[in-house]
Amino acid sequence: MKQYNVCVVGAGAVGQEMIRLLRRRNFPAGVVTILARSERDQVIDGETYHVLPTTHEAFEGMDFAFFAGTEGEKGASQVYGWEAVKKGCVVIDNGDDYRMDPRVKLVVPEINAHELKNHNGLISNPNCSTIIALMALAPLHRAAGIRRMVVCTYQAVSGTGASAITELQNQVRAWVAGEPMVKENYPHQIAFNVLAQIGSVKDTPGWTTEEMKLKRETHKILGDSSIRVSTTCVRVPVMNAHSEALHVEFKNPMNAAKAREILSKAEGVTVVDDIAKSVYPMPISASGHENVLVGRIRDDDSADNALALFVAGDNLWKGAALNAIQIGEKMIAMGLK
Amino acid sequence: MKQYNVCVVGAGAVGQEMIRLLRRRNFPAGVVTILARSERDQVIDGETYHVLPTTHEAFEGMDFAFFAGTEGEKGASQVYGWEAVKKGCVVIDNGDDYRMDPRVKLVVPEINAHELKNHNGLISNPNCSTIIALMALAPLHRAAGIRRMVVCTYQAVSGTGASAITELQNQVRAWVAGEPMVKENYPHQIAFNVLAQIGSVKDTPGWTTEEMKLKRETHKILGDSSIRVSTTCVRVPVMNAHSEALHVEFKNPMNAAKAREILSKAEGVTVVDDIAKSVYPMPISASGHENVLVGRIRDDDSADNALALFVAGDNLWKGAALNAIQIGEKMIAMGLK
Repeated sequence: MKQYNVCVVGAGAVGQEMIRLLRRRNFPAGVVTILARSERDQVIDGETYHVLPTTHEAFEGMDFAFFAGTEGEKGASQVYGWEAVKKGCVVIDNGDDYRMDPRVKLVVPEINAHELKNHNGLISNPNCSTIIALMALAPLHRAAGIRRMVVCTYQAVSGTGASAITELQNQVRAWVAGEPMVKENYPHQIAFNVLAQIGSVKDTPGWTTEEMKLKRETHKILGDSSIRVSTTCVRVPVMNAHSEALHVEFKNPMNAAKAREILSKAEGVTVVDDIAKSVYPMPISASGHENVLVGRIRDDDSADNALALFVAGDNLWKGAALNAIQIGEKMIAMGLK
Repeated sequence: MKQYNVCVVGAGAVGQEMIRLLRRRNFPAGVVTILARSERDQVIDGETYHVLPTTHEAFEGMDFAFFAGTEGEKGASQVYGWEAVKKGCVVIDNGDDYRMDPRVKLVVPEINAHELKNHNGLISNPNCSTIIALMALAPLHRAAGIRRMVVCTYQAVSGTGASAITELQNQVRAWVAGEPMVKENYPHQIAFNVLAQIGSVKDTPGWTTEEMKLKRETHKILGDSSIRVSTTCVRVPVMNAHSEALHVEFKNPMNAAKAREILSKAEGVTVVDDIAKSVYPMPISASGHENVLVGRIRDDDSADNALALFVAGDNLWKGAALNAIQIGEKMIAMGLK
């Protein structure tokens, strides 16, 4: 079997999971190189990796580059992405920089792998909360057409990065010790609190960038900008795995029994749905799992053809690193590399 | 000024807040008696109260009885409520037992105090998440008529009771100490987790009792059962104060600017809404405040005349004890007692 030269750009929370998943999934990688801002040794799962500095030359001879790093305020892909593509490397970018760029495909392999056929060398990985919602919703959309969806998120601190996990842990330790909590990543205490603010506020008054991503990326991935999307994105004091309440109206008949049947056959989805036995998706059960968990599937009589659902998915895995690796795997399987 | 004989039935999380608020608000109470399952001394805010056992005779001569206790599986009001009413006592019941009973008014004083005029002696206090949502929504409903609302909650453990606060605290302490977490109130760990299950599942397949309360109580309080309500109720690892994301469609024109203007004048509501400066409702700021906080007020183009909002309110105060005391105060002000 052909072995590919692979590099991971960035060694933060997502970059580390990429390294972990390349091994776990036996990605056909010859050498895996880690590129970051500066040269150093870094230990991941007990193994020491020699991290090299990111330069244009570093992409010479690479087949796949998984980008999960920043360069100042922007993603490293803005500096190195297209140059790497010119060198014949496929760039799979976890950042937000090119997701809405018309040249770039935005792919969740289970949903729109066919888009990869016309890729331009740089492929974007969607935002975590979009991927997790659409893993449950895309199969239902294919069956009945989504008219409108209201998404309320319960997002883990790992989405902010490794330092935010430490921040939550340190705040909790400070609370136990009776000491003041230190804030760095978030403007307010996150321990024992919820923050209805993820991302910044840019062009759409009142809406955060995280909320707008869910809308715009849903349109691009499902190829249907008529879908009406409304969201409230909220950070909760959970270490890892995002949860989302989905209230969805379909154009055509849909019901809970049908949705459960469709989702139980959907690739990458596990139905966990028995509220009477306290079985439903939770972040502590979704964390470290490749599949997105779907449950609380209910007929919703508040609108025509409406359903309510609750999902949980590992934002660092399916919401980021895993989806990126799966894009690479799919391209190999499709003979695109 | 007339002094009223007042008793509080139950000395748990809500009963204690009732005692606290009767003092804090200078309720015109002569003697405040605490009734509970057994006779004992109980210290609240440094003061020792002699708790008497709940008997039918204990309501003799009482003007107001605030019920926040249980008797086995049901509320104490089911055993003592109507008997106390026969003795001339006004019963204000925090429990769920009579909320949907057609004989009983379900009142949030800022919203439907006029209903008190035709009370039958026993008045029900709505559920915490209903009160907190409607404090923001009722003024907007009066202005433009709610067609449909989708409510996703972020509910604190204090709503389960004092022992659930201890459970979250002990789980967090156990995590810091590297010890296993003990579960008692909840079927799963609540520390660093979210649970999409509040209440039980009874008559409506898949929906929890907490979710159904929000729908039925909204209809009764607003006197409009045509309002379409869909909810997902979720417990989060927050000590006190419930938060809720509200996605609302109105029958008539409504927009964020108008909503902000209406809500800034609404009694019992404080608008905290400046996302660019990280100002929005949070449980840690709503806890210990009498007003419900409203923010993240946004024009929502996903439906006609639609708005998205985020609210936070103290579930033990406005969501329970405070609203009950305010019902009593309002009855006095209206000359009904």
